[in-house]
Amino acid sequence: MKIALAQINPTVGDFVGNTKKILEYAARGGDAGAELVVFPELAVCGYPPADFLEKAVFVARAEEALGEIAAWTGKAGRPAILCGSVMASASNVGKQVRNVAVLLTGGKISFVQQKMLLPFYDVFDEQRYFEAATQQKLTYVGGQPLAITICEDAWNDKGFWPRQMYPVDPVEGLMTQWEAKKSELDGQPRIVLNISASPYWQGKPRVREEMLAAIASRHRAVVAMVNQVGGNDSLVFDGSSVVIGPDGKTVLRAAAFAEDLVVFDTETSQGAETSSRTDEVAELWDALVLGTRDYVRKCGFSKVLVGLSGGIDSALVAAIAVEAVGAENVVGVGMPTEYSSLGSIEDARKLARNLGVRFELLPIHDVFAQFQHVLQPLFKGTSFGLAEENLQPRIRGTLLMALSNKFGALVLTTGNKSEMSTGYCTLYGDMVGALAVIGDVMKTRVYGLSRYVNRVKEVIPWATIEKPPSAELRPGQKDTDSLPPYEVLDPILEAYVERYRSAEQIAEEQGVDVGLVRSVLQLVERSEYKRQQAAPVLKVTRKSFGMGRRFPIAVKVQV
Amino acid sequence: MKIALAQINPTVGDFVGNTKKILEYAARGGDAGAELVVFPELAVCGYPPADFLEKAVFVARAEEALGEIAAWTGKAGRPAILCGSVMASASNVGKQVRNVAVLLTGGKISFVQQKMLLPFYDVFDEQRYFEAATQQKLTYVGGQPLAITICEDAWNDKGFWPRQMYPVDPVEGLMTQWEAKKSELDGQPRIVLNISASPYWQGKPRVREEMLAAIASRHRAVVAMVNQVGGNDSLVFDGSSVVIGPDGKTVLRAAAFAEDLVVFDTETSQGAETSSRTDEVAELWDALVLGTRDYVRKCGFSKVLVGLSGGIDSALVAAIAVEAVGAENVVGVGMPTEYSSLGSIEDARKLARNLGVRFELLPIHDVFAQFQHVLQPLFKGTSFGLAEENLQPRIRGTLLMALSNKFGALVLTTGNKSEMSTGYCTLYGDMVGALAVIGDVMKTRVYGLSRYVNRVKEVIPWATIEKPPSAELRPGQKDTDSLPPYEVLDPILEAYVERYRSAEQIAEEQGVDVGLVRSVLQLVERSEYKRQQAAPVLKVTRKSFGMGRRFPIAVKVQV
Repeated sequence: MKIALAQINPTVGDFVGNTKKILEYAARGGDAGAELVVFPELAVCGYPPADFLEKAVFVARAEEALGEIAAWTGKAGRPAILCGSVMASASNVGKQVRNVAVLLTGGKISFVQQKMLLPFYDVFDEQRYFEAATQQKLTYVGGQPLAITICEDAWNDKGFWPRQMYPVDPVEGLMTQWEAKKSELDGQPRIVLNISASPYWQGKPRVREEMLAAIASRHRAVVAMVNQVGGNDSLVFDGSSVVIGPDGKTVLRAAAFAEDLVVFDTETSQGAETSSRTDEVAELWDALVLGTRDYVRKCGFSKVLVGLSGGIDSALVAAIAVEAVGAENVVGVGMPTEYSSLGSIEDARKLARNLGVRFELLPIHDVFAQFQHVLQPLFKGTSFGLAEENLQPRIRGTLLMALSNKFGALVLTTGNKSEMSTGYCTLYGDMVGALAVIGDVMKTRVYGLSRYVNRVKEVIPWATIEKPPSAELRPGQKDTDSLPPYEVLDPILEAYVERYRSAEQIAEEQGVDVGLVRSVLQLVERSEYKRQQAAPVLKVTRKSFGMGRRFPIAVKVQV
Repeated sequence: MKIALAQINPTVGDFVGNTKKILEYAARGGDAGAELVVFPELAVCGYPPADFLEKAVFVARAEEALGEIAAWTGKAGRPAILCGSVMASASNVGKQVRNVAVLLTGGKISFVQQKMLLPFYDVFDEQRYFEAATQQKLTYVGGQPLAITICEDAWNDKGFWPRQMYPVDPVEGLMTQWEAKKSELDGQPRIVLNISASPYWQGKPRVREEMLAAIASRHRAVVAMVNQVGGNDSLVFDGSSVVIGPDGKTVLRAAAFAEDLVVFDTETSQGAETSSRTDEVAELWDALVLGTRDYVRKCGFSKVLVGLSGGIDSALVAAIAVEAVGAENVVGVGMPTEYSSLGSIEDARKLARNLGVRFELLPIHDVFAQFQHVLQPLFKGTSFGLAEENLQPRIRGTLLMALSNKFGALVLTTGNKSEMSTGYCTLYGDMVGALAVIGDVMKTRVYGLSRYVNRVKEVIPWATIEKPPSAELRPGQKDTDSLPPYEVLDPILEAYVERYRSAEQIAEEQGVDVGLVRSVLQLVERSEYKRQQAAPVLKVTRKSFGMGRRFPIAVKVQV
């Protein structure tokens, strides 16, 4: 039997658009000879719908859309559809909604498998919404038995993970059922289908595939996983759907970071060594581009604004923006003060020229002076300090928002993860914007990405990449006046922010002074209030700022 | 036996301070003749610790602190302590932490009851962190059997709730055990202890007490509940600990919104009709004051800044601030433009005088003009609109933050829930601040609270209360230019934002045109991006903006 995996990019809540897309891909799958076309988890409503799941009308609309999709399968010659969606719970105790994989054949719902393992860590809140399945069973399409699982259901393999998060393994459970029916299923290939909405972090496509390969090998089964693709707020879904043979080798891979439709034959799914994948920097770049493009598009915008300081962060964000929405939709704005070096303005202008984007220069000296004049009665006798420094990014933020309000363009925030971690950024200043494009990218990785951008020719001026980083908020300022060099800082931050290591562990692990480590960790703890008012951050690591990392502000914590 | 309920206000992560407080209250309980002193859920580490629970060092410190508290009970004549804390999980599958009630007697841990029901709705994420108990049992202090439960464990009574959230009822389970041991326990009063960290919303203390009364009556038991008190970020814990007799009548109540220690005798716990409680407006006021005071204090600040527009929202916030941190710690700042009426400035000045707070006037005409001048090359040919309107609150926000940076005072945000719901507020403008004091209070309730403030004498100028609301961002502007009157708007918002009703249901329920309803709901949906960058909102309703209400931004939703 031929099965198609339809790796689509739905929009949360867009039942009309998502249904249309599902039927288009189903038709394409049918044209390619597939008897079954498989769609990702919650494809009908988009993932993650979050608290929309608590609205009865949302669930009702999903059920209506599912009815429409079912009806489509009623016409002779059309393939069956296996599709993720939500359904009202059948129980009157507990959560009122089910996360389901629904098999649609002959115009109606012929089988429903409810999700058994509901993730509730990092960005996942599924126990908040869904009633977990307490049972599962094999189903059949055209006489071929299928073991159907939903995303997390496949993430508890005891052979792969050192610690299990759940007491049951749904894949193992289904394979045990298969074993019990062995005689009647004789000769049939074992097929595990997994419909996913598995968001990206750097390296995850490889981990996911290795895990699925371990499952395929252990159960001597074909494992076919279809993943959602596309950006939804902070989350970027990478697609990277795969089919793995019973030998644990990959049979085929769908595109990464793009919609795709791939077809495999259950009879001939033998693995072959496949070509090596994109490297990790390219993967990260693709994730940031797709996340930016989809956020802008799904918010109903087409144009973006980027404040260009002449520094590397804003340069990288501008390059990402151009790739995401096109040079004609990007405007760079330079907003120098007296502390901006001439070189910085020139670098910004050169970047804009290299990228082919419009560049506007709005000098802020006079507004800055006027602010200081207004504040003078209260500030007199004090010396130039943080208050005066922060006025400058806040003026810039205000100008960008004025342009945004006037011309209907989204502002992209340019801060990196090292800054967001340490609070080396100004709330309502450079933190202004709709999306923090590189808010999950440490400064040292910003350099790597910038060199990637320049791999063919200079796009980001080399001067921007090579000069010492500075916020240019006072004469001669350098980042290293306040922070350790990024080569020292970033590994400390990564250990604390992403891996929750203690000061002692970090000092030991990295051979740095524990006093230095503590001073960095204190910066992290003291700046939580800023992060809670930050723009959504595109998640590209295992632990990014935002919904997946929940810390209180009014605390007394020993670091 | 005498039991003391110690209703304390811990700080998240402050193991030294919390331990000290617990031992002080334990000693006071002992002095009052109690054999057992009972503390709230997670009293050792404070509630909610959120993702700190995922740090091994945090759990280890809690265990150390618990050891110190246990040691204290070793000295002859000291009472036993029942205390909420966290402990590492005993299992190697699933979550790594337990939420526990620990009985400390004779210098050591003599009993541990793990929490069975882990809430995971609204602001609660407990399944994210904790392994649920699978069993429970009675324990004994001085020969008296005790049924120990933790917060949510008591919130699933089938006699009280129309729909059960969990398949088991831990109180019923423990009472069944009691029944089984009836002969040996003969003559002993049934005692259910509940240690809680149950956050406030308007009317909740009454609901909580009625629920506990239903449990007491059904099981013919004394029910004693000790609740945490104090503000922790968005959440305000009201205390309101109670003891209810087996007849369902309240025996005693601890203070609301303040620390307290109350002692009851298990032998004589008969209920008496108790005096009526504070009215709901007073309760709301107390919640906002405590939430503000604790946020400022626990963030390590003492002073606050409030932008005073002459309008009712900022006036109310200033009044709350004065009650919370003292008039000497509040500075009001007026920042008029040419669109501010003279009356507004006078009203702001009068308010400051009535409250006894310092008032500073920083006119922003010139900064506003300078911004328009800088933007002129790009804005020429466009007419005065949203971009120009929003410049004004953004200049004000920038000035307040400059004062905050210079003088180390927290800015309090003054927007109300009607504004936050509809997006009738400026991101990085009037939304600037550390805490959105009245962000969960609809405009119509702002009036009620303002009249409450003025119940003895005029504090908020009556002119402020009586004039039509206006943002004063363009000549002659009124809120009703853009929004329906608040008497119509607020019930629509309440139904949609707090109760998740559909447009049709709201139109039906409130007898208003469905087109009008839809236009309001669209404002709510379109302004989600603003709310996700808002300051923490003090939660005072069942559904407030913030962690308890999780909606995506980049969506396509039909209202």
